[in-house]
Amino acid sequence: MSRMTYKLASLAEYEDFFKQRGHEIACLYYESGSDEEITLKQNMESFKRLRIKPRVLQNVTSNDVTVSLLGQKVDLPICIAPTALQAMAHPDAEVATAKAAEKMGTCMVLSQHANKSLEELGAKTPNGLKWLNLYLFPNRTVTLDLVRRAERSNFKGIAVTIDNPSLGNLKRLHNQEETTVYYRRIIDSHGYGHLEKYLKGYDMGPTLQSGLPRDIKITDPSATWEYVDWLRSKTSLPIIVKGVLTAEDAMLAINHGASAVIVSNHGGRGLDSVPATIEALPEVVKAIGDRVEVYVDGGIRNGIDVFKALALGAKAVFVGRPILYGLAHSGEEGVHNILEILKSELIRTMRFTGCRSLSDIKPSFVVHQSHYAKL
Amino acid sequence: MSRMTYKLASLAEYEDFFKQRGHEIACLYYESGSDEEITLKQNMESFKRLRIKPRVLQNVTSNDVTVSLLGQKVDLPICIAPTALQAMAHPDAEVATAKAAEKMGTCMVLSQHANKSLEELGAKTPNGLKWLNLYLFPNRTVTLDLVRRAERSNFKGIAVTIDNPSLGNLKRLHNQEETTVYYRRIIDSHGYGHLEKYLKGYDMGPTLQSGLPRDIKITDPSATWEYVDWLRSKTSLPIIVKGVLTAEDAMLAINHGASAVIVSNHGGRGLDSVPATIEALPEVVKAIGDRVEVYVDGGIRNGIDVFKALALGAKAVFVGRPILYGLAHSGEEGVHNILEILKSELIRTMRFTGCRSLSDIKPSFVVHQSHYAKL
Amino acid sequence: MSRMTYKLASLAEYEDFFKQRGHEIACLYYESGSDEEITLKQNMESFKRLRIKPRVLQNVTSNDVTVSLLGQKVDLPICIAPTALQAMAHPDAEVATAKAAEKMGTCMVLSQHANKSLEELGAKTPNGLKWLNLYLFPNRTVTLDLVRRAERSNFKGIAVTIDNPSLGNLKRLHNQEETTVYYRRIIDSHGYGHLEKYLKGYDMGPTLQSGLPRDIKITDPSATWEYVDWLRSKTSLPIIVKGVLTAEDAMLAINHGASAVIVSNHGGRGLDSVPATIEALPEVVKAIGDRVEVYVDGGIRNGIDVFKALALGAKAVFVGRPILYGLAHSGEEGVHNILEILKSELIRTMRFTGCRSLSDIKPSFVVHQSHYAKL
Amino acid sequence: MSRMTYKLASLAEYEDFFKQRGHEIACLYYESGSDEEITLKQNMESFKRLRIKPRVLQNVTSNDVTVSLLGQKVDLPICIAPTALQAMAHPDAEVATAKAAEKMGTCMVLSQHANKSLEELGAKTPNGLKWLNLYLFPNRTVTLDLVRRAERSNFKGIAVTIDNPSLGNLKRLHNQEETTVYYRRIIDSHGYGHLEKYLKGYDMGPTLQSGLPRDIKITDPSATWEYVDWLRSKTSLPIIVKGVLTAEDAMLAINHGASAVIVSNHGGRGLDSVPATIEALPEVVKAIGDRVEVYVDGGIRNGIDVFKALALGAKAVFVGRPILYGLAHSGEEGVHNILEILKSELIRTMRFTGCRSLSDIKPSFVVHQSHYAKL
Repeated sequence: MSRMTYKLASLAEYEDFFKQRGHEIACLYYESGSDEEITLKQNMESFKRLRIKPRVLQNVTSNDVTVSLLGQKVDLPICIAPTALQAMAHPDAEVATAKAAEKMGTCMVLSQHANKSLEELGAKTPNGLKWLNLYLFPNRTVTLDLVRRAERSNFKGIAVTIDNPSLGNLKRLHNQEETTVYYRRIIDSHGYGHLEKYLKGYDMGPTLQSGLPRDIKITDPSATWEYVDWLRSKTSLPIIVKGVLTAEDAMLAINHGASAVIVSNHGGRGLDSVPATIEALPEVVKAIGDRVEVYVDGGIRNGIDVFKALALGAKAVFVGRPILYGLAHSGEEGVHNILEILKSELIRTMRFTGCRSLSDIKPSFVVHQSHYAKL
Repeated sequence: MSRMTYKLASLAEYEDFFKQRGHEIACLYYESGSDEEITLKQNMESFKRLRIKPRVLQNVTSNDVTVSLLGQKVDLPICIAPTALQAMAHPDAEVATAKAAEKMGTCMVLSQHANKSLEELGAKTPNGLKWLNLYLFPNRTVTLDLVRRAERSNFKGIAVTIDNPSLGNLKRLHNQEETTVYYRRIIDSHGYGHLEKYLKGYDMGPTLQSGLPRDIKITDPSATWEYVDWLRSKTSLPIIVKGVLTAEDAMLAINHGASAVIVSNHGGRGLDSVPATIEALPEVVKAIGDRVEVYVDGGIRNGIDVFKALALGAKAVFVGRPILYGLAHSGEEGVHNILEILKSELIRTMRFTGCRSLSDIKPSFVVHQSHYAKL
Repeated sequence: MSRMTYKLASLAEYEDFFKQRGHEIACLYYESGSDEEITLKQNMESFKRLRIKPRVLQNVTSNDVTVSLLGQKVDLPICIAPTALQAMAHPDAEVATAKAAEKMGTCMVLSQHANKSLEELGAKTPNGLKWLNLYLFPNRTVTLDLVRRAERSNFKGIAVTIDNPSLGNLKRLHNQEETTVYYRRIIDSHGYGHLEKYLKGYDMGPTLQSGLPRDIKITDPSATWEYVDWLRSKTSLPIIVKGVLTAEDAMLAINHGASAVIVSNHGGRGLDSVPATIEALPEVVKAIGDRVEVYVDGGIRNGIDVFKALALGAKAVFVGRPILYGLAHSGEEGVHNILEILKSELIRTMRFTGCRSLSDIKPSFVVHQSHYAKL
Repeated sequence: MSRMTYKLASLAEYEDFFKQRGHEIACLYYESGSDEEITLKQNMESFKRLRIKPRVLQNVTSNDVTVSLLGQKVDLPICIAPTALQAMAHPDAEVATAKAAEKMGTCMVLSQHANKSLEELGAKTPNGLKWLNLYLFPNRTVTLDLVRRAERSNFKGIAVTIDNPSLGNLKRLHNQEETTVYYRRIIDSHGYGHLEKYLKGYDMGPTLQSGLPRDIKITDPSATWEYVDWLRSKTSLPIIVKGVLTAEDAMLAINHGASAVIVSNHGGRGLDSVPATIEALPEVVKAIGDRVEVYVDGGIRNGIDVFKALALGAKAVFVGRPILYGLAHSGEEGVHNILEILKSELIRTMRFTGCRSLSDIKPSFVVHQSHYAKL
């Protein structure tokens, strides 16, 4: 795909561009959700069922969208969710994404399964706020080594993926021999980031997943909250628990030392039929109150969605697929423009609702469309 | 587009005609809503979710649809909402619209952004009830000058647009260089109405909005209710606050001297995701009670919609896009026919519900379709 | 359209046949609803939103579907609603329909606007239960003459249409010069039934409606319940009030001497947006209790629909358009088969619900689908 | 249709294969539901309206999906529902299905209307748990003979179909002369299983149903619960009542000696408009409590659906059409793979919800989507 130098005007246009011009398997991989893709679709549809009640004449000349995440100030409450193998979208991969995040002054969560290593990102974006996405490996030595590497490279948080006792069932990728060939080619050409060192001497075999050594396989059904306790005891970096959808698990996350939770359903790629994240958010926020920070990812496609998520209690949102669309279009500049669009759309939404700062964005601004089915 | 001399039978037919025969950019401009166009679509769909409970055998031989708006009697409760640059639809522009309104005996709100000036309308339709649509300019001298001009030209009200702290995000118009060229051509050929005098010496630049001098730019995020207080103190004309969607802002409008409010979401062109106007109407009516008059615009496409709006508490409705469709079809005659159709459809609806005058149209005539989901 | 001699298996197949083979204008005329056709569509869709709770092992060997309507026994609770100008469907017109009804042992309501006269039906189907559909003419001499003629021809009831203060707005028929030509040709060729005698010396003019003499025009906005009182005083035939959709009008019908009411919205051809008849039925049944009989028409397309209507309190249903489809297909035999299909489908439904007679069909058999949205 | 030797990855793929490659009449026969197919469609759609609330970090390394059905242990709670004339799908017919069930360690219900006899299945799958599906024949001698044969062939339960007072109205099969010819050819070529002996000397005539001797015709409207009492008194095999959709009939089933009930609507082939089975399940479970076992069939198309059914109180599910799709694709192996897919999907779902055994699957894991319409 030839790289573009102009900007597009909305996330939807970037998505269309990617679908038309991206590598077919990369598109399938990024676009897919699990099973019937009910949750994938609802992640977006559920936002559309919420209405915003605007307020007028509030002097919204200046709009402050800065916020602090676990004590680190960022310039906007729109951060970058971890997504795998960004070289499928652009050869600069995670480095381009991190540079855009640094430039915009926001937080990036680096995927466990990156083409670029955490050390490279640490070196190339020294001023960008970065968290490392971490899976709970059966071999805790690997886990700990990754944490130490993150600490050394000045990452400021560990975002632990807890919602993967199994791989999700991405049906659109079934029966495609070439998928594996393509993955291998991407990894052979662009590297396997910080995981590469643990793969030495292993044959990754016919599929990426089955070929991984048991120690670092990406799903581990045996993990429990004890693992989080252990991790908590091993590092002073804040732990962000990613993948909470219920009040019960939110409370457990707090009780096991999480500094924050991300309401996430893995982009609709874990268990199909689980709630959309914007559906699950209020329950988690209510359970947690002010005890730790709550973020959300999944289905955000414009700044109005961001506003709705913030109104329902998220301190920030994390965006996944749209970042890839921007990356695929024009590398760092594309990612930067995605963030710019979202920021300007958020600010526009704040102006229409009379909000001058993020703290003005209250739950009362948002109602479900069923609110208007009563007369 | 060649002008038509015959009449069409429904607003939908006028719309189809316009879409097939109107200038492409004019169509895009008039048809567009902001962002995903959820609100644009819901403005119409929400009417369809309401059911009317008819009544029979009430002797409805005569149907009185006259009503007084702020003390001025009109012959029908169906008025004309302000829409910009009507020369895009027809060279006679706002003059044709005003003549049709005068002939029908209804009220027209002249857009701030008209091709024809308020003075011209004052002179050519001396007997028509007219209100001036006013934006709250940063430079109050301009504002006041416009008010004085409206007073001198016998306008009877100032309809203040309060819901534009930002421009809406009309995505369908993105990336269209030719859009600006087209606007400029329209203004160059047909004038910029009463705003023209304030533009002297300014270069309107590459886009209409960015080229406007700061003093008269059409969005001003700094405005507050104090501006309305000030305006109230400067004129004895009634102030109609246009763009209210919540009980809270309705109360503020009253407290700051409004004589009436228009429940409006700017035709779905402001912030997407806000409630449809017919959804927001009951909340505003309940808050206001009998203190000031309440009107509504947005999504009205036939006389049944008018009836529903009146039943839910609007004293009159304002119609935007359909007026443009009639204007585009056959100028004054087309606008007149649009109003005739709506009036006759309203009367038909009143006959089927046993209503002889507008005061007979009570809330109990209308229920949400969900009412029938209980058995 | 060449006539068919074989039978079709469902009402849907007859409808498809008619749409493919019927005269285009006849199709438009019969299929149309008013305005946006919301009510037309909901008449059918609302049935589909109801669920039936079956019961098993009740010994349903024999199923008694006889019922008495105003003291007259019929062999099935499925009767024929009045529909206009049946010669548009078949040259035998209302005579074929009446013969099928007589043969099936059910009640037919003869339209005010028939091609065949009430006297002809009286003579040719002496044993069939027939009611005359009557509009409330401004000239009561005409009304009374029709009632006397009905009495003389052994009609057993007067079904008074009360829901036509205006003509409905059948948009699909707009702007069709040829429509009027077609109507005239039908009337010229096949007669105008019992109304023909009152038309002598009148020119029916360019359209059927506008050409009618004022005395017999089919809509009269001046009518009130006093007219029903007067009619009640002039005949000993039972008066069935057709066109009730609310509890209030149902009570008024009783208070003014109705022996029965038909919950009807004129087949979705009166005011669009009114409730579907199966939606309105429970409210009317609740208001009336056992005081008079309640029937329903509108949207019935199979025997399951009939069962639902009976469960919700209708003593019988009246079927309109499907009768025309059968008539168009194969005249008397087609109408007969439509009734046979509905009867056998009703009996099948009764077997699946353990109902042996119509009195076993209780409200508890039917729930709205939203009942299952609670867990 | 040539037989396939490879495996497909989801039930949907097997269904697509069957629709593309199966015999046209077999497809119509298996795919059809009655009347408008509302219930057929809702059986599947209703599952999609349920959301699963996942739980994380529960150590789900091992997942026990064994369960006992009426005292017999099976290796998975996914059993095989009775479906007729499996030779339409594959020449090995019920034998292939039974072998796959035996191999998987699950229960198969053999259809009354099989091509292979119960004795053949008893002999060829001696270790498989099998129940016989039984209709309540007017001639109880036939009924009793079938029960005795089932006892002798080591069947462990009698699943009595009680929801067939009439044949359902499979509209898609109407007017198809060739349908009957096809059935006859199937029966002539592959036998009529254990019913064959009762047909001696009978001419099955133009259609299968009408040609059956009265004694064994498959619908009997005269049956009552007394028949179940009688059956209960004649055999010590447990009686499973199949076809319950209401609390009332569930209680009657218990009172008349049922050991279990199957919530079923005959795959949407009985009375259209009845509730989807997953809709009806909670009402039945609530009425029955722990008194007897409750199962459910209808609409299950993946392991997530299985989980939802178990969460709402089913002890096991029965799968019909998908088994046929597997059978049509590759005989025993296809059926086996269908069961394998469902089992692995169920286990995946359990892992995502933190369930280690079936008893961990509680009602609180499932909510209706309308739960999220409140904010």
